[in-house]
Amino acid sequence: MQIRVFFAVWALVLIAGGSTVQGSEAPISDATAECLGCHEIFHPGIVEDWHSARHSVVTPGEAMTVEGLERKLSADEVPDNLREVAVGCAECHTLRPEAHADTFEHNGYDVHVVVSPDDCKTCHAVERKQYSENIMAHAYGNLARNTLYQDLQEKILGTPRYGEGAIHYEPSDARTRADACYYCHGTVVGVEGTETRSTDAGDLDFPVLSGWPNQGVGRINPDGSAGSCSACHTRHAFSIEMARKPHTCKECHVGPDVPAYKVYSASKHGNIYSAMREKWDFTPVPWTVGTDFTAPTCAVCHISLTVTPDGTVVNERSHRMTDRLGWRIFGLIYAHPEPKSPDTTVIRNADGLPLPTDFGGGTASAFLLNEEQMAAHRDTMQSTCRACHDTSWVQGHFQRLDNTIARSNESVKTATEILQKAWEQGWAEGPGKGSPFDEAVERKWMDAWLLYANNIRFVSAMAGGGDYGVFEDGRYHLAAAIAGLHDWMQTREFLKTPSP
Amino acid sequence: MQIRVFFAVWALVLIAGGSTVQGSEAPISDATAECLGCHEIFHPGIVEDWHSARHSVVTPGEAMTVEGLERKLSADEVPDNLREVAVGCAECHTLRPEAHADTFEHNGYDVHVVVSPDDCKTCHAVERKQYSENIMAHAYGNLARNTLYQDLQEKILGTPRYGEGAIHYEPSDARTRADACYYCHGTVVGVEGTETRSTDAGDLDFPVLSGWPNQGVGRINPDGSAGSCSACHTRHAFSIEMARKPHTCKECHVGPDVPAYKVYSASKHGNIYSAMREKWDFTPVPWTVGTDFTAPTCAVCHISLTVTPDGTVVNERSHRMTDRLGWRIFGLIYAHPEPKSPDTTVIRNADGLPLPTDFGGGTASAFLLNEEQMAAHRDTMQSTCRACHDTSWVQGHFQRLDNTIARSNESVKTATEILQKAWEQGWAEGPGKGSPFDEAVERKWMDAWLLYANNIRFVSAMAGGGDYGVFEDGRYHLAAAIAGLHDWMQTREFLKTPSP
Amino acid sequence: MQIRVFFAVWALVLIAGGSTVQGSEAPISDATAECLGCHEIFHPGIVEDWHSARHSVVTPGEAMTVEGLERKLSADEVPDNLREVAVGCAECHTLRPEAHADTFEHNGYDVHVVVSPDDCKTCHAVERKQYSENIMAHAYGNLARNTLYQDLQEKILGTPRYGEGAIHYEPSDARTRADACYYCHGTVVGVEGTETRSTDAGDLDFPVLSGWPNQGVGRINPDGSAGSCSACHTRHAFSIEMARKPHTCKECHVGPDVPAYKVYSASKHGNIYSAMREKWDFTPVPWTVGTDFTAPTCAVCHISLTVTPDGTVVNERSHRMTDRLGWRIFGLIYAHPEPKSPDTTVIRNADGLPLPTDFGGGTASAFLLNEEQMAAHRDTMQSTCRACHDTSWVQGHFQRLDNTIARSNESVKTATEILQKAWEQGWAEGPGKGSPFDEAVERKWMDAWLLYANNIRFVSAMAGGGDYGVFEDGRYHLAAAIAGLHDWMQTREFLKTPSP
Repeated sequence: MQIRVFFAVWALVLIAGGSTVQGSEAPISDATAECLGCHEIFHPGIVEDWHSARHSVVTPGEAMTVEGLERKLSADEVPDNLREVAVGCAECHTLRPEAHADTFEHNGYDVHVVVSPDDCKTCHAVERKQYSENIMAHAYGNLARNTLYQDLQEKILGTPRYGEGAIHYEPSDARTRADACYYCHGTVVGVEGTETRSTDAGDLDFPVLSGWPNQGVGRINPDGSAGSCSACHTRHAFSIEMARKPHTCKECHVGPDVPAYKVYSASKHGNIYSAMREKWDFTPVPWTVGTDFTAPTCAVCHISLTVTPDGTVVNERSHRMTDRLGWRIFGLIYAHPEPKSPDTTVIRNADGLPLPTDFGGGTASAFLLNEEQMAAHRDTMQSTCRACHDTSWVQGHFQRLDNTIARSNESVKTATEILQKAWEQGWAEGPGKGSPFDEAVERKWMDAWLLYANNIRFVSAMAGGGDYGVFEDGRYHLAAAIAGLHDWMQTREFLKTPSP
Repeated sequence: MQIRVFFAVWALVLIAGGSTVQGSEAPISDATAECLGCHEIFHPGIVEDWHSARHSVVTPGEAMTVEGLERKLSADEVPDNLREVAVGCAECHTLRPEAHADTFEHNGYDVHVVVSPDDCKTCHAVERKQYSENIMAHAYGNLARNTLYQDLQEKILGTPRYGEGAIHYEPSDARTRADACYYCHGTVVGVEGTETRSTDAGDLDFPVLSGWPNQGVGRINPDGSAGSCSACHTRHAFSIEMARKPHTCKECHVGPDVPAYKVYSASKHGNIYSAMREKWDFTPVPWTVGTDFTAPTCAVCHISLTVTPDGTVVNERSHRMTDRLGWRIFGLIYAHPEPKSPDTTVIRNADGLPLPTDFGGGTASAFLLNEEQMAAHRDTMQSTCRACHDTSWVQGHFQRLDNTIARSNESVKTATEILQKAWEQGWAEGPGKGSPFDEAVERKWMDAWLLYANNIRFVSAMAGGGDYGVFEDGRYHLAAAIAGLHDWMQTREFLKTPSP
Repeated sequence: MQIRVFFAVWALVLIAGGSTVQGSEAPISDATAECLGCHEIFHPGIVEDWHSARHSVVTPGEAMTVEGLERKLSADEVPDNLREVAVGCAECHTLRPEAHADTFEHNGYDVHVVVSPDDCKTCHAVERKQYSENIMAHAYGNLARNTLYQDLQEKILGTPRYGEGAIHYEPSDARTRADACYYCHGTVVGVEGTETRSTDAGDLDFPVLSGWPNQGVGRINPDGSAGSCSACHTRHAFSIEMARKPHTCKECHVGPDVPAYKVYSASKHGNIYSAMREKWDFTPVPWTVGTDFTAPTCAVCHISLTVTPDGTVVNERSHRMTDRLGWRIFGLIYAHPEPKSPDTTVIRNADGLPLPTDFGGGTASAFLLNEEQMAAHRDTMQSTCRACHDTSWVQGHFQRLDNTIARSNESVKTATEILQKAWEQGWAEGPGKGSPFDEAVERKWMDAWLLYANNIRFVSAMAGGGDYGVFEDGRYHLAAAIAGLHDWMQTREFLKTPSP
């Protein structure tokens, strides 16, 4: 009934006013008009998407007149030629042509394929700066320039060959890497040359790109910048609604190593989102607790500018997500305080390795947040919690998280002690002799921390539920993995001392 | 923009016409007005949620005038002071102050933090009584007071330590238990003392609660009652829409041990829900098959009052979910008839253990439904099936379920026989010598029944699909687990008889 | 645009007084009126569903007047008696009574229970013909008449028994098969006899069906036809909206062997669908890229007739899904070109086995698409990609897919070489000595290709994301499975050569 009334009223408005759902479009530059002339035929999906976007409706000049929390354009100034036209094809794809190695001549324009954060910062300067300090912007280098992570990567992505009773791993190729780890971490997008293609508009030259397509959060762009705004703000609608919904985060946070989406969707918060989302409003800036939404999505807790119904700020917007995080719950090998620098390759642990913790559980504390900093980050996060939960609730929740981090670290330490004994006995080849990531017993140990301990912590952090945290890649499996390690050791022990 | 227009128009209608979707709010008691005065500033999320709730719109007095199937308030009488005001903060949180150990003086009111089923029964007497006879209300004690389950729990939640070639398990701590099993089963919420907090409203005293927060279905409340209505009827909207959608059940039924949500979402019924839910109406009482919804959710089959379009009752509402269930498909170790009593600690099997079945597959039949009772429960369930499916369809479905229960029990028996041989050979320490749940081979055996056989039965019960029941924690994995047990035995056997 | 018009019209109908959502119903035949008289009381769910269907609103005669791409009825002619009435109960369930073995006398009518594709082709002739050439229509025979697949099936579905130190498998029963593999592949629906049931309408005779209920894609119907349109076009709304949403495909494509739905929902495309679907229109024929939808669902890529906003065809509708596929990415044991014939039992590999590849990775190329045919199918698929993506994007994507298919095949080959050595050593019994699918080491090998390699390829094919393809049943697990195989070999090797 209620739904019927709602649609009836909506439709009447549409019939009466004739004003489009999205509102009238902004003036379009000549260059963009020329782009649209062909591309609405050749790539209608992109073009229609853009027509649904704010970029097609509001000029930067109009956006700059917005004051206060409602303001979305964060640059102090916008170049004159961009100010009074829609943010169309040409506005982004011909910006700073000299900076982009992928710029090519295209029907009289200097067009580049890959729009980068340094293009976006023309209007979104604050967000771009914050994001550059976000660990995600460094996701490429943090993986590609860490020798230990590279070893881990190659024991997963390399092609295994069997010969002379042993497995060895051929190095992974670039396409495999782009299809796997660097899909999320970001590829290096490079220009390999130029090719001529026969198109419906005649023969045209285009750059040949390597590492393309890619929308990884730490993508290295042809202009040298790092990151990809479109990882979350999907082209070409760049919908804030989409970025605020958890499905966006799921693209890279879905597996048991970082199971954020799956845990969320099993939590009370995720339940409320799944059941009630049609009644929420995902577009207002600022975003109001209780009226626009009644439970947090990923963005509410980690990024968005949120206010109370009377306009008081609950949390400032930040694209530097560690602002609200004290613990890093899925790092190698143990959970640990968030790193100070988003470039984690600078970290050295007690063994001189580029890791935030060592095998024994010690932390590379000089490179990590101290307790005071952790408390400040946690307090920022808790501002959001307190908009709906009383203090005892919030305290109780975070005490459990701290406890679960400590306990899961202890379980991982037990797993590590067993593995270290295997290395001592010569039953596997550990640091100094071989990769710690390739043999079967080492992979069982990896399951313990990379899959199960991570899961347990995510479930605890997000109040994701007992059943998930126990039986879905959780405590049940962590305990079994440790028992499995011990069983493997016993078999090796027995092999040395056969029964009579 | 588009959504804003819609909400703007919607709001206009609400303001202007009074033909509000939710209706105008009911009179608010002075006490509740005083609560709202502060808490709409401090906890706007909760307050806004309540404003969206029926509790803010309809007084108990109005609710009592509703006759017939539409009636939601099931108490015969409601106290005079509650009758003509909205069900607000004070109405629930100051009810029966003497009964609640967590009652504290708060700005002149005796407030308790944890609203319990015995508070809710003031208006919802029938539902509270049914729920007290529901096995879920006993979820705390059924786990915490069963010695065998406690052993299982500690082999999962306890902290494993490695020393002298063996794993031993340190007892779990209370926070781990609350973060894991008892998140769903329910904690004991206790009062540990009082603390003074500096708040924006000055220094105030609050009780310090243990086991808090928690919304487990069997929570032991500070008033001694068992259960938490808010497990499913999420605070503070208490939306029937949310309780009727499957995401609520997912919070505790998502892992491979009780994969109800995942199986549902892979089933034809779940497909219809996922694809068509925007067209359904989740709020009417009673709930009409075919017009309000076109496929069952969890609530339709297990709880809700459903009628045909001409108003004939399909199934009576019941919060005692076993009313519609004959088999218990995820009990230890074999599927078995539903227990007679919701308190399963009273059960004793042939070995004197508090389990509904014994290792050999025999059932503790004196404590379980007999065939006639099972048939009656099944027939109640089938009333719902028959609203859409003909008799041969329904019969065929349930014959397959019975068959799958029998076959999966047989597979589990084979797994158990292998383990029993391992115990006989002294290759693992079973009952009488050690825990049956701690060694690797025992954990493989647990996988067989606790994960895979359970999955297979849920898939069969919910027509959840061949692919899910075979390859997603299903038959493929059960067969592999049994082959794995046998392989482990062979290795142990070989170790005793090395090749020359 | 379409969404707007649709809602506007809908609302007008609602406002104007027409109480039906769907518009006025078409004339109903006397026979159907008689059916409805009883069944709206006995099976209101089905009847209400039908009232919401196009079948209740548009007569075949009206449907035949539609010209061009909008036309849904594809038969050249429709029998006179069906032309001017709604497609109601009797129109389908009394069609071709002599052809259906399940036809029975029912209140003066010759009614059959199972409506088959050969009934549906009365109006939907083109779709029925295409579907008969679709591999899915052959899903029953392709499994049931392939000796090797039958061996695999029985090592999963058979009841394992333990005795004399070995596991043997009792043959599966028909109900287990129907509850498992044939739930999706389709059962043989047969007539076993007749039974009399006491109903509210008196004693009535009904056929007793075996293999019922079932909606598998390759169901063998009592009229001898193969397939079940209702597998995707769910009774009795037969909603095109539902068939176009991915939840329908999920019913059979959810497990790690064919994880299409799960990969989709973790992909950028799935993210857009999940976040924005409420704004899309799933009903128009043809279906317009960019305005009706902004990202593909399963149907967009594999089946639907899609057009650009100016009406140019992007892809023709086809119910023969291989039209757009070059590779078959989940076949036994290696990915390979799609088979030429939908009946895969005709295939013979180099070893004479009915498989598209052999153990060494060679393909039964005479039975599979050649390179030119693969290229044509791929080009058809790419037409859809190019509606939103430029050529370099599309090329880059497909180059990665080819590479991932090659690499995953190589990894599987390594796994196979290890197993073959186990067979040579006599540590397991392979082809010629025993089933290749029953022992633990063989099951580990099956994990490598049947679960993990398949996952990796699906992720690559659907741009399903790095995290999913690495850690969620992906590359991490494939590498671990191979290390696990090698570890098993080492243990067996050590057993032969115990340490002193």
